Amino acid sequence: MDESRIRNILGSIQSGRLSIDAAFRKLRHLPYEDLSFAKVDHHRHIRQGIPEVIYAEGKREEDVVAIARSMYKKSKKFLITKASKKIYDGLKIKNAVFFPSSGTISIGEDKKKKGNILIVSAGTSDIPVAEEAAVTASFLGSKVESIYDVGVAGIHRLMDIRKSIDSAKVVVVVAGMEGALPSVVGSLTDKPIIAVPTSIGYGTSLGGLTALFAMLNSCVPGIAVMNIDNGFGAGCLAHKINIL
Amino acid sequence: MDESRIRNILGSIQSGRLSIDAAFRKLRHLPYEDLSFAKVDHHRHIRQGIPEVIYAEGKREEDVVAIARSMYKKSKKFLITKASKKIYDGLKIKNAVFFPSSGTISIGEDKKKKGNILIVSAGTSDIPVAEEAAVTASFLGSKVESIYDVGVAGIHRLMDIRKSIDSAKVVVVVAGMEGALPSVVGSLTDKPIIAVPTSIGYGTSLGGLTALFAMLNSCVPGIAVMNIDNGFGAGCLAHKINIL
Amino acid sequence: MDESRIRNILGSIQSGRLSIDAAFRKLRHLPYEDLSFAKVDHHRHIRQGIPEVIYAEGKREEDVVAIARSMYKKSKKFLITKASKKIYDGLKIKNAVFFPSSGTISIGEDKKKKGNILIVSAGTSDIPVAEEAAVTASFLGSKVESIYDVGVAGIHRLMDIRKSIDSAKVVVVVAGMEGALPSVVGSLTDKPIIAVPTSIGYGTSLGGLTALFAMLNSCVPGIAVMNIDNGFGAGCLAHKINIL
Amino acid sequence: MDESRIRNILGSIQSGRLSIDAAFRKLRHLPYEDLSFAKVDHHRHIRQGIPEVIYAEGKREEDVVAIARSMYKKSKKFLITKASKKIYDGLKIKNAVFFPSSGTISIGEDKKKKGNILIVSAGTSDIPVAEEAAVTASFLGSKVESIYDVGVAGIHRLMDIRKSIDSAKVVVVVAGMEGALPSVVGSLTDKPIIAVPTSIGYGTSLGGLTALFAMLNSCVPGIAVMNIDNGFGAGCLAHKINIL
Amino acid sequence: MDESRIRNILGSIQSGRLSIDAAFRKLRHLPYEDLSFAKVDHHRHIRQGIPEVIYAEGKREEDVVAIARSMYKKSKKFLITKASKKIYDGLKIKNAVFFPSSGTISIGEDKKKKGNILIVSAGTSDIPVAEEAAVTASFLGSKVESIYDVGVAGIHRLMDIRKSIDSAKVVVVVAGMEGALPSVVGSLTDKPIIAVPTSIGYGTSLGGLTALFAMLNSCVPGIAVMNIDNGFGAGCLAHKINIL
Amino acid sequence: MDESRIRNILGSIQSGRLSIDAAFRKLRHLPYEDLSFAKVDHHRHIRQGIPEVIYAEGKREEDVVAIARSMYKKSKKFLITKASKKIYDGLKIKNAVFFPSSGTISIGEDKKKKGNILIVSAGTSDIPVAEEAAVTASFLGSKVESIYDVGVAGIHRLMDIRKSIDSAKVVVVVAGMEGALPSVVGSLTDKPIIAVPTSIGYGTSLGGLTALFAMLNSCVPGIAVMNIDNGFGAGCLAHKINIL
Amino acid sequence: MDESRIRNILGSIQSGRLSIDAAFRKLRHLPYEDLSFAKVDHHRHIRQGIPEVIYAEGKREEDVVAIARSMYKKSKKFLITKASKKIYDGLKIKNAVFFPSSGTISIGEDKKKKGNILIVSAGTSDIPVAEEAAVTASFLGSKVESIYDVGVAGIHRLMDIRKSIDSAKVVVVVAGMEGALPSVVGSLTDKPIIAVPTSIGYGTSLGGLTALFAMLNSCVPGIAVMNIDNGFGAGCLAHKINIL
Amino acid sequence: MDESRIRNILGSIQSGRLSIDAAFRKLRHLPYEDLSFAKVDHHRHIRQGIPEVIYAEGKREEDVVAIARSMYKKSKKFLITKASKKIYDGLKIKNAVFFPSSGTISIGEDKKKKGNILIVSAGTSDIPVAEEAAVTASFLGSKVESIYDVGVAGIHRLMDIRKSIDSAKVVVVVAGMEGALPSVVGSLTDKPIIAVPTSIGYGTSLGGLTALFAMLNSCVPGIAVMNIDNGFGAGCLAHKINIL
Repeated sequence: MDESRIRNILGSIQSGRLSIDAAFRKLRHLPYEDLSFAKVDHHRHIRQGIPEVIYAEGKREEDVVAIARSMYKKSKKFLITKASKKIYDGLKIKNAVFFPSSGTISIGEDKKKKGNILIVSAGTSDIPVAEEAAVTASFLGSKVESIYDVGVAGIHRLMDIRKSIDSAKVVVVVAGMEGALPSVVGSLTDKPIIAVPTSIGYGTSLGGLTALFAMLNSCVPGIAVMNIDNGFGAGCLAHKINIL
Repeated sequence: MDESRIRNILGSIQSGRLSIDAAFRKLRHLPYEDLSFAKVDHHRHIRQGIPEVIYAEGKREEDVVAIARSMYKKSKKFLITKASKKIYDGLKIKNAVFFPSSGTISIGEDKKKKGNILIVSAGTSDIPVAEEAAVTASFLGSKVESIYDVGVAGIHRLMDIRKSIDSAKVVVVVAGMEGALPSVVGSLTDKPIIAVPTSIGYGTSLGGLTALFAMLNSCVPGIAVMNIDNGFGAGCLAHKINIL
Repeated sequence: MDESRIRNILGSIQSGRLSIDAAFRKLRHLPYEDLSFAKVDHHRHIRQGIPEVIYAEGKREEDVVAIARSMYKKSKKFLITKASKKIYDGLKIKNAVFFPSSGTISIGEDKKKKGNILIVSAGTSDIPVAEEAAVTASFLGSKVESIYDVGVAGIHRLMDIRKSIDSAKVVVVVAGMEGALPSVVGSLTDKPIIAVPTSIGYGTSLGGLTALFAMLNSCVPGIAVMNIDNGFGAGCLAHKINIL
Repeated sequence: MDESRIRNILGSIQSGRLSIDAAFRKLRHLPYEDLSFAKVDHHRHIRQGIPEVIYAEGKREEDVVAIARSMYKKSKKFLITKASKKIYDGLKIKNAVFFPSSGTISIGEDKKKKGNILIVSAGTSDIPVAEEAAVTASFLGSKVESIYDVGVAGIHRLMDIRKSIDSAKVVVVVAGMEGALPSVVGSLTDKPIIAVPTSIGYGTSLGGLTALFAMLNSCVPGIAVMNIDNGFGAGCLAHKINIL
Repeated sequence: MDESRIRNILGSIQSGRLSIDAAFRKLRHLPYEDLSFAKVDHHRHIRQGIPEVIYAEGKREEDVVAIARSMYKKSKKFLITKASKKIYDGLKIKNAVFFPSSGTISIGEDKKKKGNILIVSAGTSDIPVAEEAAVTASFLGSKVESIYDVGVAGIHRLMDIRKSIDSAKVVVVVAGMEGALPSVVGSLTDKPIIAVPTSIGYGTSLGGLTALFAMLNSCVPGIAVMNIDNGFGAGCLAHKINIL
Repeated sequence: MDESRIRNILGSIQSGRLSIDAAFRKLRHLPYEDLSFAKVDHHRHIRQGIPEVIYAEGKREEDVVAIARSMYKKSKKFLITKASKKIYDGLKIKNAVFFPSSGTISIGEDKKKKGNILIVSAGTSDIPVAEEAAVTASFLGSKVESIYDVGVAGIHRLMDIRKSIDSAKVVVVVAGMEGALPSVVGSLTDKPIIAVPTSIGYGTSLGGLTALFAMLNSCVPGIAVMNIDNGFGAGCLAHKINIL
Repeated sequence: MDESRIRNILGSIQSGRLSIDAAFRKLRHLPYEDLSFAKVDHHRHIRQGIPEVIYAEGKREEDVVAIARSMYKKSKKFLITKASKKIYDGLKIKNAVFFPSSGTISIGEDKKKKGNILIVSAGTSDIPVAEEAAVTASFLGSKVESIYDVGVAGIHRLMDIRKSIDSAKVVVVVAGMEGALPSVVGSLTDKPIIAVPTSIGYGTSLGGLTALFAMLNSCVPGIAVMNIDNGFGAGCLAHKINIL
Repeated sequence: MDESRIRNILGSIQSGRLSIDAAFRKLRHLPYEDLSFAKVDHHRHIRQGIPEVIYAEGKREEDVVAIARSMYKKSKKFLITKASKKIYDGLKIKNAVFFPSSGTISIGEDKKKKGNILIVSAGTSDIPVAEEAAVTASFLGSKVESIYDVGVAGIHRLMDIRKSIDSAKVVVVVAGMEGALPSVVGSLTDKPIIAVPTSIGYGTSLGGLTALFAMLNSCVPGIAVMNIDNGFGAGCLAHKINIL
């Protein structure tokens, strides 16, 4: 139901063509979504905090390019995750940036960054997931610092980054294999920690389930855990917390 | 927001105290649920097809008795699942029936039964789940026929019940262990079949997961599968289909 | 044993060549299947409700084409699931329709559609499974309406389709990831709901097991659940219920 | 190494008894923890954000009482989780509060509450976990609002609490069975959401794993997930975010 | 349909009251089970090789006693598995034997034993399962030799029993934990080997799944594997093979 | 230690160069395997019942060809499983037979077949596993009858093969998906049954684990179960039983 | 075969009653175990390194007491694991020591301890497993130092024990929940590390599987992992390494 | 903080410019890692026992070559695991050795080997993992003996290698499928045993999990278990133990 139909009903009351009882019945039976959800839709960005993002995996390359271009036309910004270099080349949009480790493409992010998110990852193989989190949070408007390759096996390196932890508002920790890094980082700070397990490992890493379960069982209380390899989700959550 | 507030707005338009524009803005910002969901609530029974049922497991006996009595007062009917004999004794409601295998208590079911549901179970240990399905469907108003102990190991018994299958509108098949019975029943009829795995078995029965997975993989196409031991759910679904 | 042999026995009684005792012994030892199962075979379509369908996966393309052609010759109709475009091109049967999302090929479906099945799917990646269900049910003779891309994350869209739900006899809900959509749809209607989990997702989606388990655990009672990605089974069941 | 030993080394330099080279070598070989970690210990509360809490499960009742009393003596405050009524009775500490659903005992929480945490739970059986989260966050100094029994099966109830969502800084959503509630809540707000799966359910709920996996797979991006039944962890994380 | 009805039809042909055509139609539509399955039932023992056995677990003690007595009356023999001493005491049947490790009760087994079954078990905790296999096979009429406590950790003991292996027709090997014994026994003989995993073990023994999977993966080809703790099944299979 | 060394010791006793005591000590410390295991090796075929077979999977094609040729030279017979057509072409051994469904190559099997093994498989996709079992048992010297495509969904077909079951000594049943066929076959006979689950199926078939678990949980007692897709093992076991 | 029989054969050669050929054949067919395994048995302690230990779990208390007394009589020493206080009280053996956390009873251990094993455990709930490892290794003759309650959440505590690590020959690390402690300890030393996961934790700790898998996936190379809660095994392995 | 800054502080004390109190405060607040961890870094080889090793899997070939060359320049030695022949060809470093089964490249290992490690593997398919363990331990400076293809199915072969076991200090046992070999080897020796499960097998081998779990459940106490296919880890641990 469009706005005009409601105005018509109200006009009919005003003009006396419609009794209050009859108008009430008409309004009562209006599909509620015309009144409220339409409006909500208008503020979709605000309601969910994450503007439309394109998940390229499983989509045809030409489709991703078309969606991205249309989105760019409307709002001059978009974020594509799990994208190939071929998609990037097909976009032909100046200033769009391609991040090859994670396969993320970003354009139009706000230049004025808010807060401070620290993203720490354990091994070189965890970098794609960490990068996806970093690009996502940055795209959404957060300031991000990334420190890669801080494994538990080289625990002294972790000590080096204590200063960065202290100046961050929220810390994202990305780790595969035994997934111990969030516990170790968490033992050194009272900042909210977002743990992202990766599928890095073999045998009993079970495609990342072991790291995931280890993080959910951390003896440091209150660590937020994401799905395996979900750098995008970690970036979203970190941003939501960072802008509080 | 109650009805009177909407009527006030409409009255103000009628009386000229409020412009259409202003009234529209007011109505537009009404929480939609006042207009639509309240109404929906009024028809809750119709909307979900299953009147309020009391799940006794994990609740204190005196609480179950209190809820049941209050419900009986309002509507003269209720169904309690996973109930103990002690709850039944505590109810002291004449004509309430206790089904000891499944621990179900029922009162107030419609005397005029519709359609015809056949409930078949494989072994004696599967009877509690089959009985819960039967009592539930009967309570909701369906006619139910039950045939117990029709295992695959005694496959010729299954042939005996072919007549019952033919006169049913929908067939519920309850089985544990290898969960093969729904496939066998399904090979003999084109009626909708609802398969309920039970947790009966040991070792690799995995608490019913094996029967569940076997039923989901049936080579007979289109078998509806329920959660393990979910006789109540099977009774609900069978009834919904039976009254079509 | 063919019919003639039984007739011979009966003829020998009539003519007095065989005593009743001897005839009874002969009949008693006849393999029962000669008497009953042969007859049953004749009504195979009626007995199982689903005419022969070709499952192309794992079969050689030329074999599928040959089977389909032979079936077409006999009955002017067939349904091929999990088929490639190459198979379709090889068929060279006019009026056969190829559905590229699901890889289904259909010909000869009845023009007079019965009832009304609504098929709702959550994300764009779930469309292949939803389409397979739709094509199957339509091939079997059911009227089908499909609404795609109604995710929980955009729950207001779901409200838009309430009218479609109300006019359907049975609703098929296809969803991957957390598999929440059937619960949400089920909270709005008392129609039978068939839930189909898809393998869409990553990490803890466990190839669709999470969506499957979530659907089996729905707090809406009586949802019928199918195997992961089993659009064909959902179409069969929906049709069986729809024609009741 | 205690402070006095370092002072002795420094004194020896001052007095000329020790060359800078020798002193440097001595200091260099000091166990670093004497210098830094001791200090850190002093600020343990600040470092991890969660003052010492007593986890009663698996401990003998008299031990829990002794630890709690000693802690109360030192700091006038403590939080005991998974405690029995018997422990509470044994404490004999005036003003200590016992929360029977979750078995939590709390005393000494700050009267001046900060921020606003909303805790929503799906079914009555999920209340113990929700209560543990609420008591924990409140003990740590956060203002908490709790709304229980907002299931997906009664989705319209969820709409009623939209105002509470809007006035919260962070939302904790507690749900068992299919674990769909966080997705539904998440579709209505851009606040950080903390999802807590509970072990409520049977069969394929797999002791809460299904709800956990469903939450990790939510189509709403950026939901923070906790271990099964981990109300305490959710309270900690919600507080950490709430005080940002 | 009873025999008399068929005889009536045949009599009507003989007397000329019924044409062959009409008789054929009548017979054709007889439920086939009257002709064939009834007969089969009469030979149930022969058809499945295992006379009726009572599985006591999950049944009430008085029910087991009643069933056993009735069975004893008819055939002077029965086997009860998973029985308690209380059931045995309640039976009050002279000569019935109670085997306390496995909780098996047996009476009426044939005195003339056939063939030779060797039952080997790995640890003392595996004896209940081995005993159930031994009592079952003996009850069915097989000669059984049992050697207990032949673990892989004491592999030289295995060598001692080589003579017993050589004189057996089939070997049952019962083992928990890592389930390696069937492979080791299998490396020494070409007799059929039946492997029975037990639930003995902890941690990654996963209730016997590890032993089961190890046995299914034996590098000795052609080992027959039973469900976890299924001594009864092993006894049945060993007997079936032993009497060939 | 070779035979000559033992003969030398014995010769030294005879000639008086060695006392009995000294000879005993020498013999006592001989590695036992020289005395016994060497001999055993000589009878390897008899000891394990299965002459050397070549498992081609994971081996380089030229290696398989070389091993097979060398084996053929020595004994004029071999069996290769999981072989490609390319291996077969490379062999260039006249009379070697290639079975394309299962990828088995066989030569030199005994012409005089013993006993009678029936191999039944459920669906067309199960044929490769059934064929591997058939070729293996035949190669080892057993007479084999194979009946393919006897699914539970077409349960009447099973009745047709009852005569074949009756004339077999042991029955191998191959089935994927829900794995119900062995239970159904087992309900009709008292012959030993060997059940082979296949990896055919999708979703909750879990790569054959569901069929495997269903077979292990069969309500027909005493079914021998093999690893998933293990046609070779089934052929070995069937042969071992068949030649008893 | 006893020694005398071999001596007889040798004597017959010497006396000329037996040819070398005949004697060789006789000796060749001797069961090898008479020659070698008997001897091996005599050195059982040396061969396996772990003298007979009594595992009390699942055994009747009076049986454990009887076995222990008999063992004490023969060798004045024994170790009982998983024992109750009641068993200890029943023993009535002076100087036997009962360790209540782990339920271990020990007597007769060597006073002269060798080497140095460090046992570190993460939380108070892990102490039973750590104690079992300590008592076992000490019983076998190793010097053991134990440091309990060194969690990752209090990682600075770990630094305090660095000196103990440096003076140990092998380190046992016991931890439940996320199982991260072995990685952290391993990052600080090049000593062999034995990791023991415990079943401490809830939800996704999966009864210790998560800690086990995390330890097997440690990014510190070469950590030896034991079964869940296997303190006894860890004590055995630590001792074997410690005495090298 | 570099050394000079500490020297400055000490110099200021010496010269009287800084009081002891002030100097103490300055030193106390120094980031501890400057004092201790830097030093530790210098001894990284000693601390973890395993010099930097390159894990090639998942890295680009040119990157591996670059890292290896740079490492070779500095220390004249490196070890690359999971490398391709192409990487080896790209290195162009004389004397570097390529091990094709495991894909390991090694150069610069010490010529003076210590101790004695025995590596035993079960089947030909387990050789790659065994070779990786052998090359790793040898690279680290251990003497290694390898015996391949000692399966349980040919258990007499195992006896042949008893002498090698006796002369080893530690034994590595590599096995897939049912993983029984470590138990069998362990029953013959009291040396520390390191068990490495491999992913060899199919069906219920579950990618090596079954062999892993079997090894963790060995009835031989104190077997050290590694992750699936982790030959590198086994080589590291064997070396650490071997050099004690």
